[in-house]
Amino acid sequence: MVPGPARSCRTLRFEAIKAATGEDFVARMVKLHKGEQRTPEYLAINPNAQVPALVVDGKPLSQIVAICDYLDRRYPQAGLMPTESWARAQAMSQFLWMNNTVHPTFTHVFMPDRFCDGEATQAEIRRFNAALYRTQLERIQGWIASASPFWLGDRLSFHDAYALTLLRWGGFAGIDPDSLPVYKAYVDRVAQHPAVVAAMAREGIKLSTFKKA
Amino acid sequence: MVPGPARSCRTLRFEAIKAATGEDFVARMVKLHKGEQRTPEYLAINPNAQVPALVVDGKPLSQIVAICDYLDRRYPQAGLMPTESWARAQAMSQFLWMNNTVHPTFTHVFMPDRFCDGEATQAEIRRFNAALYRTQLERIQGWIASASPFWLGDRLSFHDAYALTLLRWGGFAGIDPDSLPVYKAYVDRVAQHPAVVAAMAREGIKLSTFKKA
Repeated sequence: MVPGPARSCRTLRFEAIKAATGEDFVARMVKLHKGEQRTPEYLAINPNAQVPALVVDGKPLSQIVAICDYLDRRYPQAGLMPTESWARAQAMSQFLWMNNTVHPTFTHVFMPDRFCDGEATQAEIRRFNAALYRTQLERIQGWIASASPFWLGDRLSFHDAYALTLLRWGGFAGIDPDSLPVYKAYVDRVAQHPAVVAAMAREGIKLSTFKKA
Repeated sequence: MVPGPARSCRTLRFEAIKAATGEDFVARMVKLHKGEQRTPEYLAINPNAQVPALVVDGKPLSQIVAICDYLDRRYPQAGLMPTESWARAQAMSQFLWMNNTVHPTFTHVFMPDRFCDGEATQAEIRRFNAALYRTQLERIQGWIASASPFWLGDRLSFHDAYALTLLRWGGFAGIDPDSLPVYKAYVDRVAQHPAVVAAMAREGIKLSTFKKA
């Protein structure tokens, strides 16, 4: 039973998993801005039209935290999460907060039409949530101040890929990464990991998205 | 090491856990409408000012999915989640979708000031998300059509308490539970479980919140 193909616009995380588990997979990009998450083919994988999804033996699994939990249980030797019970619970808690709070805040900035109609309302949603997003990135900065070299220690894991993505998105929200120097230094370190280098090259994305006004 | 006290406004889920694990705990209500999640005492437990939190030996754990995952790992004999790897992953995926998508949609209806300023914008956010929330409850109704008697089978679990809560909240969003008859019949069944009866009695809440216009 080999995981594959994975279909995701966040193949960074899968690349980290590949590096850790040695298990190969096929990454497929789903372009949200082109509405590819709403094609009949993708809706058959996830009727909720959300990315990412992992397809194992033809069966789809959605929700990034469920995918990571599944992979952690399947490849315990990869050390993707702490093994000690309480440390794992705390790592899960941080991962979940990024997933259910920080990530959706950015979605309000990037796709305000998911939450409201009308240009004026959407502009207000974008403005309000860009400011909120900054406070959330500051909290992450507090957490990763002790990352050495990565969030969970020696090994690249889910948290690093998520944290990199969230700071990168900050540029689209008008947040200068230089204004979060501890966070930026950590992300620069994560971005040098060969798995991350490979994923960003394949997706053709740059780490820096911020443009000075 | 005994879990306690737990501080939560969603003690329904903890009551289900108590019934399953036999482990006692102290439930403490955090009244969001009174801002109790922002008191110095609570912020010391969760700086993100979110409920619920579980305190074990004086150490806090936040995020409901992290709490449930921790309890499932600590009390495997309780059967709170499927033990087979793929079935567990699918159950996690559904739980996570309720947590990171359906729950926040209701938050837009109930606390639109968390996402925007201004009465007009907040009214628009409330309207848009009440309609969206209905479509999400319909998806849950599709999932629980086969619940027998509970979401995961014979035993009450996290999913049942969450699903009950989400339909109950629907009343506040102007959604008549009678318009989702399969979901309502399932929730009526869940609400008869002694642990749920006890939790609702202690919290002094009624299952029905819908008022015809």
